Amino acid sequence: MASVAIIMGSISDYETMKGAEQVLKEFEVDYEIDVVSAHRTPDKMFEFAKGAKDRGVKVIIAGAGGAAHLPGMVASLTTLPVIGVPVVSKLQGLDSLLSIVQMPKGVPVATVAVGGAENAALLALRMLSISDEKIAQKLSKYKEGMEKEVNAMSLKLKEVCENE
Amino acid sequence: MASVAIIMGSISDYETMKGAEQVLKEFEVDYEIDVVSAHRTPDKMFEFAKGAKDRGVKVIIAGAGGAAHLPGMVASLTTLPVIGVPVVSKLQGLDSLLSIVQMPKGVPVATVAVGGAENAALLALRMLSISDEKIAQKLSKYKEGMEKEVNAMSLKLKEVCENE
Amino acid sequence: MASVAIIMGSISDYETMKGAEQVLKEFEVDYEIDVVSAHRTPDKMFEFAKGAKDRGVKVIIAGAGGAAHLPGMVASLTTLPVIGVPVVSKLQGLDSLLSIVQMPKGVPVATVAVGGAENAALLALRMLSISDEKIAQKLSKYKEGMEKEVNAMSLKLKEVCENE
Amino acid sequence: MASVAIIMGSISDYETMKGAEQVLKEFEVDYEIDVVSAHRTPDKMFEFAKGAKDRGVKVIIAGAGGAAHLPGMVASLTTLPVIGVPVVSKLQGLDSLLSIVQMPKGVPVATVAVGGAENAALLALRMLSISDEKIAQKLSKYKEGMEKEVNAMSLKLKEVCENE
Amino acid sequence: MASVAIIMGSISDYETMKGAEQVLKEFEVDYEIDVVSAHRTPDKMFEFAKGAKDRGVKVIIAGAGGAAHLPGMVASLTTLPVIGVPVVSKLQGLDSLLSIVQMPKGVPVATVAVGGAENAALLALRMLSISDEKIAQKLSKYKEGMEKEVNAMSLKLKEVCENE
Amino acid sequence: MASVAIIMGSISDYETMKGAEQVLKEFEVDYEIDVVSAHRTPDKMFEFAKGAKDRGVKVIIAGAGGAAHLPGMVASLTTLPVIGVPVVSKLQGLDSLLSIVQMPKGVPVATVAVGGAENAALLALRMLSISDEKIAQKLSKYKEGMEKEVNAMSLKLKEVCENE
Amino acid sequence: MASVAIIMGSISDYETMKGAEQVLKEFEVDYEIDVVSAHRTPDKMFEFAKGAKDRGVKVIIAGAGGAAHLPGMVASLTTLPVIGVPVVSKLQGLDSLLSIVQMPKGVPVATVAVGGAENAALLALRMLSISDEKIAQKLSKYKEGMEKEVNAMSLKLKEVCENE
Amino acid sequence: MASVAIIMGSISDYETMKGAEQVLKEFEVDYEIDVVSAHRTPDKMFEFAKGAKDRGVKVIIAGAGGAAHLPGMVASLTTLPVIGVPVVSKLQGLDSLLSIVQMPKGVPVATVAVGGAENAALLALRMLSISDEKIAQKLSKYKEGMEKEVNAMSLKLKEVCENE
Repeated sequence: MASVAIIMGSISDYETMKGAEQVLKEFEVDYEIDVVSAHRTPDKMFEFAKGAKDRGVKVIIAGAGGAAHLPGMVASLTTLPVIGVPVVSKLQGLDSLLSIVQMPKGVPVATVAVGGAENAALLALRMLSISDEKIAQKLSKYKEGMEKEVNAMSLKLKEVCENE
Repeated sequence: MASVAIIMGSISDYETMKGAEQVLKEFEVDYEIDVVSAHRTPDKMFEFAKGAKDRGVKVIIAGAGGAAHLPGMVASLTTLPVIGVPVVSKLQGLDSLLSIVQMPKGVPVATVAVGGAENAALLALRMLSISDEKIAQKLSKYKEGMEKEVNAMSLKLKEVCENE
Repeated sequence: MASVAIIMGSISDYETMKGAEQVLKEFEVDYEIDVVSAHRTPDKMFEFAKGAKDRGVKVIIAGAGGAAHLPGMVASLTTLPVIGVPVVSKLQGLDSLLSIVQMPKGVPVATVAVGGAENAALLALRMLSISDEKIAQKLSKYKEGMEKEVNAMSLKLKEVCENE
Repeated sequence: MASVAIIMGSISDYETMKGAEQVLKEFEVDYEIDVVSAHRTPDKMFEFAKGAKDRGVKVIIAGAGGAAHLPGMVASLTTLPVIGVPVVSKLQGLDSLLSIVQMPKGVPVATVAVGGAENAALLALRMLSISDEKIAQKLSKYKEGMEKEVNAMSLKLKEVCENE
Repeated sequence: MASVAIIMGSISDYETMKGAEQVLKEFEVDYEIDVVSAHRTPDKMFEFAKGAKDRGVKVIIAGAGGAAHLPGMVASLTTLPVIGVPVVSKLQGLDSLLSIVQMPKGVPVATVAVGGAENAALLALRMLSISDEKIAQKLSKYKEGMEKEVNAMSLKLKEVCENE
Repeated sequence: MASVAIIMGSISDYETMKGAEQVLKEFEVDYEIDVVSAHRTPDKMFEFAKGAKDRGVKVIIAGAGGAAHLPGMVASLTTLPVIGVPVVSKLQGLDSLLSIVQMPKGVPVATVAVGGAENAALLALRMLSISDEKIAQKLSKYKEGMEKEVNAMSLKLKEVCENE
Repeated sequence: MASVAIIMGSISDYETMKGAEQVLKEFEVDYEIDVVSAHRTPDKMFEFAKGAKDRGVKVIIAGAGGAAHLPGMVASLTTLPVIGVPVVSKLQGLDSLLSIVQMPKGVPVATVAVGGAENAALLALRMLSISDEKIAQKLSKYKEGMEKEVNAMSLKLKEVCENE
Repeated sequence: MASVAIIMGSISDYETMKGAEQVLKEFEVDYEIDVVSAHRTPDKMFEFAKGAKDRGVKVIIAGAGGAAHLPGMVASLTTLPVIGVPVVSKLQGLDSLLSIVQMPKGVPVATVAVGGAENAALLALRMLSISDEKIAQKLSKYKEGMEKEVNAMSLKLKEVCENE
């Protein structure tokens, strides 16, 4: 049973959205992944969104670009938390970002940075960690890992600067 | 039977959208008007959009603000032409405009200016005029009326400038 | 006799505008196509716009970039519906978009997304379908085609993800 | 014990943030509320963020304006989900929005619309509902309530239009 | 005979454009002033622009807002220098500015600041001064006047600060 | 003796500014060309701007990028008309454009499009044509040439479309 | 002898810039204050900027709006650190900000927030504190004061919330 | 002992930030350089910022991109002057710029242009020069060097233009 559903408006968005997939794999959290288009398959989107909770999905990650309606429409059809990923577009993703984040009162979308699919997954994991201490512990380790990564960068930079 | 349907995401949008109503009244074209919210009443929106053509509607005008999904979603559920009116929002309507106009390939929305409800109605009338010569003639007269209006402004301005 | 006229400000815009041509060909709708520049051939533009309706044109698609005046000026010279396509420019097409969409009260331009020539053609077809049921049926099929395309993407994505 | 913590950078943000408070009261979910400034009380912010989970807080809502660092910094100091509310500023909240949403890989902030404090609370409730079916049911009722609200608007609009 | 023609798209633009008139009066340069709308009176615009040079006009100042096509269209119909004044609009005049300044190669518009009607007149005077030394001398005096104005401000500020 | 002076903030701007040079050569109008930096050679700029009129210069074209102060500062030091060319920068030239066009009351800069060096030269020629009928005639021919160019494009497009 | 010079392009900027004055008074640091316009008094600006260091000035604070050239030009004429304050304008201060901050390589301006005159003064004080330990200590106290201010807000907010 | 500390959020920012390093080397001013991430190493950042002054650091240069919190957070933890360098991001650095410059009252960051690392170093040198006349003299020479550089460009341009 998948705790997280990753959906995107087009297969071309997978280039961006696989960042979310990789994080969930790394955390060993089950997910489902699909192409669901608000504009080209509105019926599939309705069905997907209305059935997600009963299917056991706990968080939905939706990526879309341009006039990005997928995250907001899915959020209007479920009570699950929905995370929106603005995919880069002709206007650098500013249209995608505003189309996703500026939701009216009543229907929130948890928006992350333009192209921020990895952060969408990490946000989903933070949500799941509210009731899953194992994930919370993995997130703490991930945090420590980032610290170590920066420390390694720190050493590398000093090396680079000394050898100039 | 209404040729034009005017819908809006909230009753607060009526302040803007009544501009469309007034133009249609002036042209004596039947219309229906309703509040249909993409995010708060997605089911009603689906029903509305899927049934519009069979009900005799020929053009749909949809006004919405912020992450404005109503025009695009309705366009995805019908083959009728859909006109989108970006309603002014916290970001001056730039978010509304981009959310409506930047539709992906396959599902167009005929977007007008921020707050441009009158123009939405005039655009609907131009569409109807393709097969309705009477409306075409009324549009020609409307055009002449605008010319006269500018000529009157012209006289008024000269008066104002002379009396300074 | 051409139902749709496609015009553009420069031959360099054809790279974008041929998307409209292809859709009209696919739908077997007659069209005419020409370079008409608001700024370099204002007389030709006047003649074109004023004569279009009498020549049997029902919808005009006009593409232009930068300070894009072609769609709006043509709309001011005819009562036919005019669809504007903002062509990408130095400022990513934001200038093109605003120059086309922000028309004053009285003269609407049906604006589509930056670079959205295919959608311009689909919008023209939706307009024609008001009085042409055959086009309406083709649009329904096109809609079904899009759904199938997404379903194919859906299968492809699952394949890709399983093989990783 | 408070499930949700609402913090803001200044007491002047309370005008915006009380929208979150009202929603939580309506849902009868315990919350704590405080002024915590990233720039003026960095030590308090560190302490707050590092201690929140142990104190039983499950979701943090942080509102800030301008160069809004509070949500992102708190997110970097905890593994709890953090929701960011961009408060309107000199540049209409665009600076607040970008400062909150454009987080680097590794540290997500769940960003809502400019001024969207109510939605921040509703998003927190959706997160809590993952493991709290009672909240999920209240969210469903809230959704029904919104539908009813729109239906009432629908009637009101018809009344207004008939009486014109 | 008028050396400068001031035109504007609507009488409502006079609020802005009278700044140009006042400067020309102050410099005792003859001008004509009229409402000419690119979109509502395209024929009048054509006639105006094509006849201006023969009528003795040397510089044209054109003010317009939103999708502001007047300055650019007039520039395409004459070889006289055309100065464009972006009038404030729903999007703060950014649309007006871009619609006027981003002209394609071949047809320049001398664009001034949003709402900068006084500067439009001063620019017209600088152009006329190329072949009119009297105007050049008046411009030098105007420049000295500005210097004096700032010196007066300087004294005033010191006074204010001392009395605090 | 040079009627037009072309200056730019850095030799790297010549890539853009040579467009102005080519137009002036084509029109056989004498010009001088130099690198003058507002920020790196303020004294040279002062001297250049203050001496230009006495040296016989009639119009100044100034190109600059980023926080582009050259056109505005030169305009403040002379009564000659100054044309500003925003050169593309890190922010696509939007900063260059706003830094040049948004001049305060009293000191106008005739601003052209981002990268619009050819139009800057054509605008200079329009200014000179006020008192030089030969240039006015050449501008008329240039205008006819543009028309022919578009007509040639028109034929070419038809050819391309027929051969598809 | 004044350690800090506050200058502004117009007396109307004093409304904003007095924020800087008040902070310097509070810190008991001597300052001079004047109106110096880059565009209307370029000679005065040159003199001011070239003479500042010899007069004992250590830091210059310059406020300006629109195409704000004052801070950058002053920075090009001195080696003293120059702090730029973007004053709100027709485009909300975005033009002011970009005109000040986007300086080319070689001539930096220390830019603060739109309208951020108080912060300009605090930044000047931080600069002076490099070699003036007394100011450094006052800055530490100021920092403590801000902390106390937030703590007071914290108490106030709790009071407000309890009494609702 | 290092007078200047250069820090950056990630080693990938070094590509930009080494511009600062090179200027400091050229001026023979001691510096330290490190990777310090506000979001991934908040504790290290706290320690760094709180200890900098006691370690003898006089100015801090901090580069970061996207939701760039490093300069502002460091500024809130020290009384040293902090210079912020917006690093280019997905949105061309506009998000980085606004996240750094729009600091609230009380905590200033001296912001330079997007990607302006060299200017950050030059600004640091100007600050140090307040109490170090040797650096002031080197800055004067640097200024002269820029003048010579432009003069060389001037000659080169004339050569290029003559040989065309």
